[in-house]
Amino acid sequence: MIAVTILGNNSAIPAHDRHPTSQIVQTTEHTFLVDCGEGTQMQMNCYKIRRKNLNHIFISHLHGDHYFGLIGLITSLALNNRLQDLHVYSPEGLSEIIDIQLAVSASKLPYRLIFHIIQNEEILWEDAHFSVRSFMVSHRIPCWGFYFQEKKFPRKLNMDALKKYNVPKAFFENLKNGEDFISEKKVIKNKQLTFASSPAKSYAYCADTVYDESICSKIKEVDMVYHEATYLDDQVLKATARYHSTSKQAAAIAHKAGAKRLLLGHFSSMYDVLDNFREEACEIFKNTEVALEGVSYLV
Amino acid sequence: MIAVTILGNNSAIPAHDRHPTSQIVQTTEHTFLVDCGEGTQMQMNCYKIRRKNLNHIFISHLHGDHYFGLIGLITSLALNNRLQDLHVYSPEGLSEIIDIQLAVSASKLPYRLIFHIIQNEEILWEDAHFSVRSFMVSHRIPCWGFYFQEKKFPRKLNMDALKKYNVPKAFFENLKNGEDFISEKKVIKNKQLTFASSPAKSYAYCADTVYDESICSKIKEVDMVYHEATYLDDQVLKATARYHSTSKQAAAIAHKAGAKRLLLGHFSSMYDVLDNFREEACEIFKNTEVALEGVSYLV
Repeated sequence: MIAVTILGNNSAIPAHDRHPTSQIVQTTEHTFLVDCGEGTQMQMNCYKIRRKNLNHIFISHLHGDHYFGLIGLITSLALNNRLQDLHVYSPEGLSEIIDIQLAVSASKLPYRLIFHIIQNEEILWEDAHFSVRSFMVSHRIPCWGFYFQEKKFPRKLNMDALKKYNVPKAFFENLKNGEDFISEKKVIKNKQLTFASSPAKSYAYCADTVYDESICSKIKEVDMVYHEATYLDDQVLKATARYHSTSKQAAAIAHKAGAKRLLLGHFSSMYDVLDNFREEACEIFKNTEVALEGVSYLV
Repeated sequence: MIAVTILGNNSAIPAHDRHPTSQIVQTTEHTFLVDCGEGTQMQMNCYKIRRKNLNHIFISHLHGDHYFGLIGLITSLALNNRLQDLHVYSPEGLSEIIDIQLAVSASKLPYRLIFHIIQNEEILWEDAHFSVRSFMVSHRIPCWGFYFQEKKFPRKLNMDALKKYNVPKAFFENLKNGEDFISEKKVIKNKQLTFASSPAKSYAYCADTVYDESICSKIKEVDMVYHEATYLDDQVLKATARYHSTSKQAAAIAHKAGAKRLLLGHFSSMYDVLDNFREEACEIFKNTEVALEGVSYLV
């Protein structure tokens, strides 16, 4: 299960009651925060996001609308007596910004704050069930996308069939991993003894980026892609000049990547109403939604 | 005219839809921002505060709930192509925090951002009609209150009397300043030729402070005083240990200072409902109000 909850869907200048970029990626076990614009901690309050399982924060790049809320969140967690480690992944420069602000108020955190500098396209974090990988996108300053991937689930045992063929328990783990049952007397195909597991889901967050087709191969056939659409398509020149994308460019990336679903965000404050973003993108990629604050999108 | 609009009335951890400290002090000509907790620029949007006349920002101290919103406001003003100078008054250390964040995003402001370090109790800014003075309060780190003072208005001319006594125009300015009309033939008392002007108003912002009676002489007979009341009075020990005040302590300061009116703020997130703050303070100082976000208090 991957669920994406939008905390902020606006670009740099907060407007129309929309907030700078931030979203929560939740799995059954983990809560990840992706970008942390000003007001993120208030948005987490507003939408009742529990912080207990939040141990990893991914910051795509160091434009303020993607990290100005981090220092407030860090200090509030401290005031709430958090004790468990907190990991922050970002381009170089963020730890200095946080440290200088903690120093000036003579604050000492009651938990360990661990910074990881993203320098390559690599696995940033993983456990037995899930991984988070960085991939480069194209913005005015170094900027990273994040690929969230469930690991393949084990096949489910068909207990009736197992009884029928008298398969000993010792073989169950191998069966879950897709192996056939082989004994001295017989070979039984895995499919006769197990059911298919739920498909492993994937979600790609493309951060801030100009239209860049090299992204497509990095997010190939992803279940859901978030791609910025700062502008509608009549502003394509402005978008390109500012290293941003339009609705149709986002749709083209989703289409060329063979993604199953597209979520648009990072809307310019010049737009009060957002309907047109979906309409324009749908001309190229039908399964498009506009990222709305407070809404959880189940991948 | 002095009007105080509350943008944030909560203490460190935002909660119950209340925001960290920030308020707007407006005169006929000027808009001053006092403290700038996270989300201040959104609150300014929410309550339609125009930024055109905002040229001076006063930061009481460098605890995050009083300045984390400054970098966001500064960069949004830049994105909105502000050109006029912006002055920020604060204890030492703030310019470094802002500069490191502008540098990491390779941002250059289109306007001059001028930092002033507050080191003494002194006039921070004044023009012909108004002044802002710093005064020291007692907190865990260096912390300043701000005293906003209208200058004495000129007396209003009584045009009927001036005609009756045939007073030449050349004397009008002297009359406005309270002088009597003296000619070779006669002396006419000022009061016969002018009306009293509106009284000059004053407002004192006491920032974050433990109970400190030395504040009283600095804000003597002020028209309205804002004093923090982080806790109700049963938490007086906790308040003192954390260099904060209670409802009744705030009221005692207002009473001893001979203030006309008290505004309570900086409420701990442990309180959902705020009514008790007013009730407790009123036992000592009747003319007390609870600072509510979005409300303008006309001094």
